[in-house]
Amino acid sequence: RVKGKIVFFNRPMDPTLLNTFRAYGGAVDQRVFGAARAAAYGAVGVIVRSVTTRYDNVPHTGVMIYNDSIPRIPAVAIGLQDADWLSEKLKSEPELQVRLRLACRTLPDAQSYNVVGDLLGSEKPQELIVVGGHIDSWDVGQGAHDDGAGCVQAMEVVDLFRRLNIRPKRTIRVVLFINEENGSRGSQAYGQYADTTALVHLAAIESDRGGFTPRGFTLQADSTVLTRVQAWLPYLRQASIDWIRRGGGGPDIGRIKTARALFGYVPDSQRYFDVHHSANDVFAAVHPREFELGSAAMAILTYLLSEYGL
Amino acid sequence: RVKGKIVFFNRPMDPTLLNTFRAYGGAVDQRVFGAARAAAYGAVGVIVRSVTTRYDNVPHTGVMIYNDSIPRIPAVAIGLQDADWLSEKLKSEPELQVRLRLACRTLPDAQSYNVVGDLLGSEKPQELIVVGGHIDSWDVGQGAHDDGAGCVQAMEVVDLFRRLNIRPKRTIRVVLFINEENGSRGSQAYGQYADTTALVHLAAIESDRGGFTPRGFTLQADSTVLTRVQAWLPYLRQASIDWIRRGGGGPDIGRIKTARALFGYVPDSQRYFDVHHSANDVFAAVHPREFELGSAAMAILTYLLSEYGL
Repeated sequence: RVKGKIVFFNRPMDPTLLNTFRAYGGAVDQRVFGAARAAAYGAVGVIVRSVTTRYDNVPHTGVMIYNDSIPRIPAVAIGLQDADWLSEKLKSEPELQVRLRLACRTLPDAQSYNVVGDLLGSEKPQELIVVGGHIDSWDVGQGAHDDGAGCVQAMEVVDLFRRLNIRPKRTIRVVLFINEENGSRGSQAYGQYADTTALVHLAAIESDRGGFTPRGFTLQADSTVLTRVQAWLPYLRQASIDWIRRGGGGPDIGRIKTARALFGYVPDSQRYFDVHHSANDVFAAVHPREFELGSAAMAILTYLLSEYGL
Repeated sequence: RVKGKIVFFNRPMDPTLLNTFRAYGGAVDQRVFGAARAAAYGAVGVIVRSVTTRYDNVPHTGVMIYNDSIPRIPAVAIGLQDADWLSEKLKSEPELQVRLRLACRTLPDAQSYNVVGDLLGSEKPQELIVVGGHIDSWDVGQGAHDDGAGCVQAMEVVDLFRRLNIRPKRTIRVVLFINEENGSRGSQAYGQYADTTALVHLAAIESDRGGFTPRGFTLQADSTVLTRVQAWLPYLRQASIDWIRRGGGGPDIGRIKTARALFGYVPDSQRYFDVHHSANDVFAAVHPREFELGSAAMAILTYLLSEYGL
């Protein structure tokens, strides 16, 4: 039991930003760095307004970073309704006393693994197209959108080839990355492997923005590749893809430095932070058609890459 | 009490069509014309598989057209689960007996009205930009997406001008059309008025495809207008609009024959037929952010039209 000052971080996500990932990025520093920052000023605990877009009372969790030279003080996130209640209450009662009791703890690291499966190419099996998501999730919900959807979509890509009886010219590799949520060590390990393997990583596609209706792909590549793949848009429109724009591929595939093209699958982002890292991220929150269109979009792109290269 | 053959129409919406409105159009003939067609062959009743995309057991309703020269036989729509059950059952029991008991009836027509409000333009008040939806709905749900969302979005367009303290150069007219659902007589009456008024209908925007995330606008206009408004896309992208394509404006504004441009607001269509014309079409099914982005998209387009004309 420790007594002392508790700091309340209550800055909401900016609702005027169309891209909710950007709004998240603008608010999540409170959860990630709040405790270390407050501890440096002598606080004994931290309460953080959940970084979420749904106005309910479901707390949202996620990574937080302590600083080794500063005491590790407890931190909790509370739902938006509680945050608003607390905020009001503090106006009339600035010396309000609260008690934090936490049962969470950080366990020692344990060995875990990426999951990898190859559908071998018929003509250039040594050229790989990686499709993937990450197989770990925060423990509060089911991790259905983050990133169960992405993992299943990656598996559905090869399943669609199988069901349509298409043998790809290049090898399609499904990679379900481990430990995206608090360290990205699966991604790092794959990146080290990619640096040294004799196999060629032509391109990689990541789905880690939820199982919502497709909007586009971000692409990290040179202009020649961008122009080339933008010419494929008429095909991708059949799966509700309206654009391919410059942008990062994603945290999982980002370490595949030799790939000529890293694609980030971009579904509509308006509902992602309603469920992200919370008890709301359950299978029932995934709409079957929206989800399947994502698989279709990734499968079409994978087909074009495997058939025509870059 | 009548005994005789009952016809079961069980053709599902085509799930491979990206545009669910097209899939709906390809299946709804069963509900609209099924009874008259079956009666012509001597049937005494009709059961129709609900024309909906959500796999639940909630029946979906809508307009049906009898033929004056053929008996008006009863028709019911059943939910998808019941339809699949019945379909299975009929395989083993083709002479299955069912009893239809209906309490619905068609009441005599009653006088009703379009609702119209003007925000007068400062420079060219005689030039109108109409924004609207339809104020009637099927009685099973709350008509939240069809078309409560469209009506409120049209009102939010003028409300956004007010809140931003912008006086438009041209007049913005909100029209909430009556009787879209079974006759479009509100639209016809407005069309007749538009033909004869001294006011100029520059453009009209209709929202009648649900309150989901914005995707684009369809446009009925000549190529000059299309090219002109496509140049506005960078502004519209701020409200999640990715394209403007040729297409109809919509059933409500479609009779404004003198307008230079008829715009149909197009939100994402993947969830619309989960709720359309059913008890599922309730306020809780409207996502606040997705809905508000539609208001924003329509307001930006309205502003550009009112400021720069066509």
